[in-house]
Amino acid sequence: MSDLSDLLEETCRPQGSAVKGEELRKLFGQLQFGWTMPNDHHLEKEYRFKDFREALGFVNRLGEVAERENHHPDIFLAWGRVKVTLWTHSAGGLTRNDFILAAKADQLG
Amino acid sequence: MSDLSDLLEETCRPQGSAVKGEELRKLFGQLQFGWTMPNDHHLEKEYRFKDFREALGFVNRLGEVAERENHHPDIFLAWGRVKVTLWTHSAGGLTRNDFILAAKADQLG
Repeated sequence: MSDLSDLLEETCRPQGSAVKGEELRKLFGQLQFGWTMPNDHHLEKEYRFKDFREALGFVNRLGEVAERENHHPDIFLAWGRVKVTLWTHSAGGLTRNDFILAAKADQLG
Repeated sequence: MSDLSDLLEETCRPQGSAVKGEELRKLFGQLQFGWTMPNDHHLEKEYRFKDFREALGFVNRLGEVAERENHHPDIFLAWGRVKVTLWTHSAGGLTRNDFILAAKADQLG
């Protein structure tokens, strides 16, 4: 059975297809606290930091992972906080790649 | 008379007060192409880049200016683009500091 450690060990694959229904619920259930999944369409989480520089540091670490995986979240940076939004434009929704990146983002926080 | 080069030479001041009316129009008129000022409440501009890494590089350069000026924009980063939003929360609107940072952001694009 797939769990969080599997997501962390996986790398994003090109051309993933959208995940639906029960499979989507199971994947979402594997993520750590703080993620939401509005309309089952995208993943969203806000991380808090003690100042702007710490938040920017997280953006850079996340950017490195995104480049390595060739899968890029939308990132909103404000003083002391970063909001990460993940979905796969080409699939019109959530793919396994989004959950892989979400799990890896939590390792950087 | 104040112009763009003045803005570029200034540094942000603590506790600026909100700018209104004609003064606001004049300051806005000094900015380069691409800025909008929705409801006279904040400044917004989207910068385009050839890929994620270039966009992230701009975010870091802007972050350095923001730290130096102690005035921090909201920054939205997606693949190949960065949207910058500026206003002064403590003043409930736009201060001269926002225009200084906007002018300096254009130097980094």
